[in-house]
Amino acid sequence: MTAPSAHLATQPDILRLFRDVRDRTTALVSPLSEADMMLQSMEDASPAKWHLAHTTWFFEEFILKLHAPSYTSPDDRFAFLFNSYYVQAGPRHARDKRGMVSRPGVDDVMAYRAHVDNALTDLLDRDRDDLHGLVELGCHHEMQHQELLVTDLLHGLSYNPLMPVYRDPEPMPVAREIPLQFNAHAGGLVQIGHDGDGFAYDCEQPRHQTYLAPYQIANRPVTSRDWIDFIEDGGYETPTLWLMDGWARRQQEGWDAPLYWWQQDGDWWTFTLRGPQPVNLDAPVVHVSYYEAEAFARWAGARLPTEAEWECAARPHEITGNFLDDGALRPLPRADLGNFWGDVWEWTQSPFTPYPGFRAPEGALGEYNGKFMINQMVLRGGSCATPLAQMRESYRTFFYPHQRWQMLGLRLARDH
Amino acid sequence: MTAPSAHLATQPDILRLFRDVRDRTTALVSPLSEADMMLQSMEDASPAKWHLAHTTWFFEEFILKLHAPSYTSPDDRFAFLFNSYYVQAGPRHARDKRGMVSRPGVDDVMAYRAHVDNALTDLLDRDRDDLHGLVELGCHHEMQHQELLVTDLLHGLSYNPLMPVYRDPEPMPVAREIPLQFNAHAGGLVQIGHDGDGFAYDCEQPRHQTYLAPYQIANRPVTSRDWIDFIEDGGYETPTLWLMDGWARRQQEGWDAPLYWWQQDGDWWTFTLRGPQPVNLDAPVVHVSYYEAEAFARWAGARLPTEAEWECAARPHEITGNFLDDGALRPLPRADLGNFWGDVWEWTQSPFTPYPGFRAPEGALGEYNGKFMINQMVLRGGSCATPLAQMRESYRTFFYPHQRWQMLGLRLARDH
Amino acid sequence: MTAPSAHLATQPDILRLFRDVRDRTTALVSPLSEADMMLQSMEDASPAKWHLAHTTWFFEEFILKLHAPSYTSPDDRFAFLFNSYYVQAGPRHARDKRGMVSRPGVDDVMAYRAHVDNALTDLLDRDRDDLHGLVELGCHHEMQHQELLVTDLLHGLSYNPLMPVYRDPEPMPVAREIPLQFNAHAGGLVQIGHDGDGFAYDCEQPRHQTYLAPYQIANRPVTSRDWIDFIEDGGYETPTLWLMDGWARRQQEGWDAPLYWWQQDGDWWTFTLRGPQPVNLDAPVVHVSYYEAEAFARWAGARLPTEAEWECAARPHEITGNFLDDGALRPLPRADLGNFWGDVWEWTQSPFTPYPGFRAPEGALGEYNGKFMINQMVLRGGSCATPLAQMRESYRTFFYPHQRWQMLGLRLARDH
Amino acid sequence: MTAPSAHLATQPDILRLFRDVRDRTTALVSPLSEADMMLQSMEDASPAKWHLAHTTWFFEEFILKLHAPSYTSPDDRFAFLFNSYYVQAGPRHARDKRGMVSRPGVDDVMAYRAHVDNALTDLLDRDRDDLHGLVELGCHHEMQHQELLVTDLLHGLSYNPLMPVYRDPEPMPVAREIPLQFNAHAGGLVQIGHDGDGFAYDCEQPRHQTYLAPYQIANRPVTSRDWIDFIEDGGYETPTLWLMDGWARRQQEGWDAPLYWWQQDGDWWTFTLRGPQPVNLDAPVVHVSYYEAEAFARWAGARLPTEAEWECAARPHEITGNFLDDGALRPLPRADLGNFWGDVWEWTQSPFTPYPGFRAPEGALGEYNGKFMINQMVLRGGSCATPLAQMRESYRTFFYPHQRWQMLGLRLARDH
Repeated sequence: MTAPSAHLATQPDILRLFRDVRDRTTALVSPLSEADMMLQSMEDASPAKWHLAHTTWFFEEFILKLHAPSYTSPDDRFAFLFNSYYVQAGPRHARDKRGMVSRPGVDDVMAYRAHVDNALTDLLDRDRDDLHGLVELGCHHEMQHQELLVTDLLHGLSYNPLMPVYRDPEPMPVAREIPLQFNAHAGGLVQIGHDGDGFAYDCEQPRHQTYLAPYQIANRPVTSRDWIDFIEDGGYETPTLWLMDGWARRQQEGWDAPLYWWQQDGDWWTFTLRGPQPVNLDAPVVHVSYYEAEAFARWAGARLPTEAEWECAARPHEITGNFLDDGALRPLPRADLGNFWGDVWEWTQSPFTPYPGFRAPEGALGEYNGKFMINQMVLRGGSCATPLAQMRESYRTFFYPHQRWQMLGLRLARDH
Repeated sequence: MTAPSAHLATQPDILRLFRDVRDRTTALVSPLSEADMMLQSMEDASPAKWHLAHTTWFFEEFILKLHAPSYTSPDDRFAFLFNSYYVQAGPRHARDKRGMVSRPGVDDVMAYRAHVDNALTDLLDRDRDDLHGLVELGCHHEMQHQELLVTDLLHGLSYNPLMPVYRDPEPMPVAREIPLQFNAHAGGLVQIGHDGDGFAYDCEQPRHQTYLAPYQIANRPVTSRDWIDFIEDGGYETPTLWLMDGWARRQQEGWDAPLYWWQQDGDWWTFTLRGPQPVNLDAPVVHVSYYEAEAFARWAGARLPTEAEWECAARPHEITGNFLDDGALRPLPRADLGNFWGDVWEWTQSPFTPYPGFRAPEGALGEYNGKFMINQMVLRGGSCATPLAQMRESYRTFFYPHQRWQMLGLRLARDH
Repeated sequence: MTAPSAHLATQPDILRLFRDVRDRTTALVSPLSEADMMLQSMEDASPAKWHLAHTTWFFEEFILKLHAPSYTSPDDRFAFLFNSYYVQAGPRHARDKRGMVSRPGVDDVMAYRAHVDNALTDLLDRDRDDLHGLVELGCHHEMQHQELLVTDLLHGLSYNPLMPVYRDPEPMPVAREIPLQFNAHAGGLVQIGHDGDGFAYDCEQPRHQTYLAPYQIANRPVTSRDWIDFIEDGGYETPTLWLMDGWARRQQEGWDAPLYWWQQDGDWWTFTLRGPQPVNLDAPVVHVSYYEAEAFARWAGARLPTEAEWECAARPHEITGNFLDDGALRPLPRADLGNFWGDVWEWTQSPFTPYPGFRAPEGALGEYNGKFMINQMVLRGGSCATPLAQMRESYRTFFYPHQRWQMLGLRLARDH
Repeated sequence: MTAPSAHLATQPDILRLFRDVRDRTTALVSPLSEADMMLQSMEDASPAKWHLAHTTWFFEEFILKLHAPSYTSPDDRFAFLFNSYYVQAGPRHARDKRGMVSRPGVDDVMAYRAHVDNALTDLLDRDRDDLHGLVELGCHHEMQHQELLVTDLLHGLSYNPLMPVYRDPEPMPVAREIPLQFNAHAGGLVQIGHDGDGFAYDCEQPRHQTYLAPYQIANRPVTSRDWIDFIEDGGYETPTLWLMDGWARRQQEGWDAPLYWWQQDGDWWTFTLRGPQPVNLDAPVVHVSYYEAEAFARWAGARLPTEAEWECAARPHEITGNFLDDGALRPLPRADLGNFWGDVWEWTQSPFTPYPGFRAPEGALGEYNGKFMINQMVLRGGSCATPLAQMRESYRTFFYPHQRWQMLGLRLARDH
């Protein structure tokens, strides 16, 4: 992925993207105290301060250090502290100890951000069109971390018995119930993967042919109301609905509802970025693992779609809105619930494997996606915490089947 | 899978299959003491005595109890002790405590086998053609356990510092080096999965179309000689060759060679069912995890085949022989190393997922394969410990990517 | 402890002791199958076959190899397999893998026993009075393992859902309720520890002065009837009764009764060497941890005695009988329940620490007790599974405060 | 311990103690950022902010809520957040999740402190002499937490690869080598425990008689120079020097030097509250576990003293100074190294058990020490981080034998 070709042609375009992305990250942490930005509740999650610094390191490591000869880092040790997992970029701090880094403080990290922003802006001012592709990658990388920042934060805050809020509670958007329907697709020999128009990650490529049998896919994600039916029908107590590994995990963790849910006086509540809220019955269910999603689909007499089925079905849809609220900065458009983007990531039944002909780029950036191609499942779409520029039909995100702390939901499919 | 249709038409045929399979299991344990048959070295492995009993329980539970009205079990508690994982067949003993069952003793288990054999033979004598499918399934089930029995035993014996032998050492078949070549395949829209001719498990079905890009596949499995090149080139010390989960496992377990290998005076040795043996350099490497196989392929500038690629490539090949020796009863034909069967199972890059249109059968037998369709990778072929009747092009076995105690190897592929 | 002085003066005496002890061990395993003798249910417990071999290795390692120049072992590898924890006697097999040693078989181990018995008898026939002390130590060592053999076996059998018996059930001795009384002791400056008369372990020495405040000690151990009162009064649900580590363990393990107890139709049952039995209400409670014993004492408004208090109080008592039944070979005398020996080991509040002036012997035998002097608590007395020759007022056994699988009970004390 | 009698007679005295202690805690955190005060590196350690709040809760819970009728807490949920382990004071937050409490922030906690300080001062102004004992206890409790605060902080900072400092580095006090000598003590029937003069915890009482054999005790703690001799003589590689549990822990943790030590260009360095520093060779060794201390003593041909031996030996000594530097506020007097206080806590060979006649006070305060009387070892003296008012001959602190993060050292003893 070294020096990928640029998709935003001009220097002003790329600068605007860079500034917008950097500013949005800063805006995301504006409601947080220095203590909030220290929270690391598990190895999978990182402190907000670390996200601020790591996304900065990414620009420093893969652009400034290689392409700006006079660049000097404010602290050479940041390379150790803020490298996430790039073996080829050198040794790095233990992932589960990120919450132990009280220093540098937030001010130091903000100064680091400014230092890198200035150096990168200066560099781009020198007509370095050859770097536009890398800058674009860095921006999309940071957008991914924006989503992680708020979901990691929510997980951290959830351990606080005081149930603090990230943003003030306000009336949540009210969804109305939409009857479930299945739309038919003919299948056949189709093309999936990125078509070369605009930015995409390596793992979305190469575009390639695949064969699909005819199938049907739901007009909307599964809602919380649907999920409560599953709970009340004993879904969490019926091992025959579950994959064996899923049932074992359910037993071990004591799952009996989505993450962050609890029951109070007969109603379901959930912990959100706006604090405790009643479960929004007609909004998509969120914070369920693959294991739960797969069991739900079996219970419903359906199945999860494959990622190719999902991609083909999503194609004609506009990216217009969402029903869930990330408690963050994005305005809340009101859109049809059938939308494939904007509320939850949707589990597919496809493991995250390389597309035919995939080859990871040379160098450290080749570690971006390739080395994760085992044990994880693909999700498609985009959640209320996903920047709009990340939403495209070929986008593949991936998580382990037991993970729940991201904005994860599902949509049903079935054979035709 | 209740009452699958029979593939062996006649009652004499089915009876012969039944007797042959049952006799072969008994023969497999003939060199073992009662103490040997108690060994359970890890949760994944089971004592030989348990395999003797569980395969018997399978016939009892799914045929005799349902279809032989007057049948009585010698001990009703065996259903609890010897059910493996069938939730719908009732509660069962903890899997990791199978090695704690000193009673019933081997004599009792042998009596249980005879009791069930007699009852089943009596039942079949009553023109119950409708049960032929179930009996056939039970026989194939037992064949699977024959392979597990010897691999579990090998694992158990490997913890004994005395390195005891299962069968007397004898000269191992000498393989000669065969140069690696890649054979081209055109790909295109192909059919894979069981074609309905002969026995197959549910997960091999339905036969369906899939699209393959042109590819190349090696003329033989990777050999121990190849593997030593990988070791000597630092393959086990180079994280960039490995999937991230693979490298983490390698670090955790301290892997630096295939399971059971050690170096002695500059030579590689391995522990086998015939005790310690020098590694047979030109035989297929065995006892490697998916993680190791995948890293090896990357090191070799190649990749693992998909299961569809493997199945298409294997089609014209005869099942004729093997180079490895299971220390067991099967004669050792000498055959070309290019054979797709008879030495090692070959890791593919395909996760074990349902085929399009797959639906698990109703009832407990639906748990046979379906609930394992997560987190595991498909292997194809068949090893020196695999009964010949199990070898077919559509057969899918599956293990977790970290597992090594089975007869697991690999074959390289690459894009065309 | 090398060449301790002999307490049994004559060669015939020492030979008789040796033969009696060796024969008793053999008799203890006579009801067991080879499979039974393989059971290892946890790292703390060992297979019966291992006990047979290890006690033999002790004589071989510490007497024959050092003092019988022409002695050869039947298998040099036994030294690795059957060394328990003596670092100075060389490397040894992993303790938690003893259950993986299917070979040597029981016949081989019995031959090993005979081989060593013969060699040792021959050696003693050559007027080697200097070895009498070591032989005596080996015999007492084997007696300790006789108790472990049956308690480890009980633990192993308890994992078998069939609840097999070691010996045939027969009517258990019926105890009658004896009212609890406390006997006063004046305390003062007393002597405790072994007085040099007869055999004792190093840790019972040196005899030394200690000061005791006046105290009272119960006339009998706590009974199962007493314990049921504790259960019914919520003892297992009241954290203020427990030490903090004890409560954490209780939560983690889910303790709500002594080990092996369960409730059935309102009655308490327990698993014993004679299979499932109703709890004998007026016999001493057994299979309770230190944590439980300490909580019970607090609940009862009392405390556990120190080991010095126990030793002084036990002095005038004869060793006459027992109420519990080890399912073994020892006849069942009927005696007063006030007896300090013969039913259960009694937890004291004393940690197992060195006596003033204690120095472990030079050499490997110095590891016998010394290196365990941390984290364990002293018990006094002797259980129904303890050989009579092991019962003396100065004997200190010791277990971790969470352990329950031995014959462990308690007696109350209080300040005067 | 409810309403213990006061040792500081007058209201002005008790108020001065209260203000001094509260101010010292505040001063201790003055160099820390809000992020520093969030650090929780392990379950044993707590964030500085938690210490600030918990010590405040102690006064609120045990004095204000019970004795100031009009008192209202600023937030009723603080009782849940800041109760440490008092079961009788109600449910409490998970100990290992204290680092997840980003809110209340430091400002909120400081306001909580002020609120309680004002309420308590008001209460004391109302001639409540009956509460002086409780206030004194709360002050001593807070002094204990002052030491924990800095040692927990050091542990937290040690996970930061930048090795940040708590206080600016300055020249460490230079100790000079003092030859090791042993001073003889006659032993005999002695009195130990608190004599009633001044404050003491329940576990230091009752004063009681105990008998000591004649013994010798070193004139100074073991120094880092001594410890390096132990390292260089293979002390960490010689299992026969170690208790069995100690050796197992050493293997598991990979100990080969005291906590925080590393070797650089042939010199030993250590991480301190003043950042990385060369090991001060003639100062007492610190951050060693009981297991290491006990092994060292064996290597040195000596032993650790019992707590009674230590207490008798320490009696005539003045509390004058220290050689180690806690990086904190206490001035650094220069004193004789023979001092029993001021540098390190000294491991004794005595487990933390109740003194004869000990009875924990009624109510929640009875949980202060009593429920810890298992599995821990007593240390005596006082470290450079111990407030002077905590130093007295009868003071017993206690830690698990594997713990090292406190200021833990040792002094040798031997039999006479």
